Amino acid sequence: MTTHHLTRRTFLGGTLMLGTIAAASGAQIQGTSDTGTAGKKKLVIGTFIYPRMDQIDFTGPFAVLSRLPDSELHVMALERGPIKDHKGLVLTPQTTISEAPPLDVLHIPGGPGQEALMRDERVLSMIRRHADQGRLVFSVCTGALLCGAAGILRGRRATTHWSAFDLLHYFGATPVNARVVVDGNIVTAAGVTAGIDGALRLAALLRGDRVAQEIQLDIQYAPEPPFNAGTPQSAPGEVVDALIERFGPLTEARRATARALAAQLGPAG
Amino acid sequence: MTTHHLTRRTFLGGTLMLGTIAAASGAQIQGTSDTGTAGKKKLVIGTFIYPRMDQIDFTGPFAVLSRLPDSELHVMALERGPIKDHKGLVLTPQTTISEAPPLDVLHIPGGPGQEALMRDERVLSMIRRHADQGRLVFSVCTGALLCGAAGILRGRRATTHWSAFDLLHYFGATPVNARVVVDGNIVTAAGVTAGIDGALRLAALLRGDRVAQEIQLDIQYAPEPPFNAGTPQSAPGEVVDALIERFGPLTEARRATARALAAQLGPAG
Repeated sequence: MTTHHLTRRTFLGGTLMLGTIAAASGAQIQGTSDTGTAGKKKLVIGTFIYPRMDQIDFTGPFAVLSRLPDSELHVMALERGPIKDHKGLVLTPQTTISEAPPLDVLHIPGGPGQEALMRDERVLSMIRRHADQGRLVFSVCTGALLCGAAGILRGRRATTHWSAFDLLHYFGATPVNARVVVDGNIVTAAGVTAGIDGALRLAALLRGDRVAQEIQLDIQYAPEPPFNAGTPQSAPGEVVDALIERFGPLTEARRATARALAAQLGPAG
Repeated sequence: MTTHHLTRRTFLGGTLMLGTIAAASGAQIQGTSDTGTAGKKKLVIGTFIYPRMDQIDFTGPFAVLSRLPDSELHVMALERGPIKDHKGLVLTPQTTISEAPPLDVLHIPGGPGQEALMRDERVLSMIRRHADQGRLVFSVCTGALLCGAAGILRGRRATTHWSAFDLLHYFGATPVNARVVVDGNIVTAAGVTAGIDGALRLAALLRGDRVAQEIQLDIQYAPEPPFNAGTPQSAPGEVVDALIERFGPLTEARRATARALAAQLGPAG
């Protein structure tokens, strides 16, 4: 698996609009200090939650992003009231996407419920408008497919859950087999638990390495997976085969949607 | 950091009551098959949530345990109605601890809110009763302090969040600096994100390696922490110092409680 060496230099070397990220990151982005927080503009982060999402695409990054200094995190949904993730966890938004304040960072989790939103213009226009202003979009897992449907991945490098990886090209993206991919203002994380790694990288980009290291130590993130089974490349063949079969119907539904949307979106610009 | 090599052999070699775990694990524990699930008793898992907990101590393991075949997971609280984690995430239980069915596995997350429950007999008796029946207890982070207050860690090896590690001895436990510690029917995970590793190990113990590997691939758990900062041993000194200072008041409150409870619990039996 390739990794993408991530520094503020490479981040800023992307297609990001510098003015916007400078505003979002305050003094940090000027490179004077990794540790000082004085004079920084408050970061406003929003996470979009929806029915049948995968809760840990949201709650993993929440554990990281809610610990950022000088920031506020808004949990948003299409409507007020609790929703359930695809395994039944009850999650309650604090606000709706139409009532939320302007965001510096928009976080889009994934999960099976993403499929029902691939043509929902309320969701797609929120993502499109945010990205088109050069603001940061952070997708986790198949949240990248929603970003693709919004048209913001055209000409971008991106990643997603391994089972949906080969769908990225339908949206004009260049799939990159990495845990976290940063392309300008678009940060995509691979499947599910990759959101934690992605959020820690975002934390470093937004508030500096020192802040991200403090968060990492706070959440004691020194993982020890019990098996070498976290990717299709490393897992035993029979394990990969079993999951490909189990995911089959969902993957085919996602492919059909991606194909149809590809025709509408037209070739990558 | 030492690791504890975990097999069903070492698991069963602990102080676990074999009859109970055999019932919980069905044919699996007989060692005939890693893959078959036919004839297994349904596993009943309960997670206890409470105000000012750390949500990812719950939601990390939820991502794993909710994917176990032939199982059901009950999210329990002292009362019905939503609670907030210490960073403001709204979580809603499905049931109360008095209404939940008998459990095979009791999962106790940690977080700052644990401190308010250290003398709550409703919580402590739930933990004690469950453990005394030889059923599995799985604590994450400072959930171990609640287990200690319940008296179930006496004479046991255990771990917890690094900032509370040296409090374990007050409860008669032997602190073990490992990501996950299994001592008979008591499984303790270190801080916060260690709950994911602990839950995957539990999954392997309860349903076999193959099932745990499928879950690990499903959640694409091939972590790539951006820094080597997840433990006090590996993080830069100034990062460790900053967090020790920030955690100071909470750590001292926890120490005072642990000392007082140690006097009540008496020496380890």
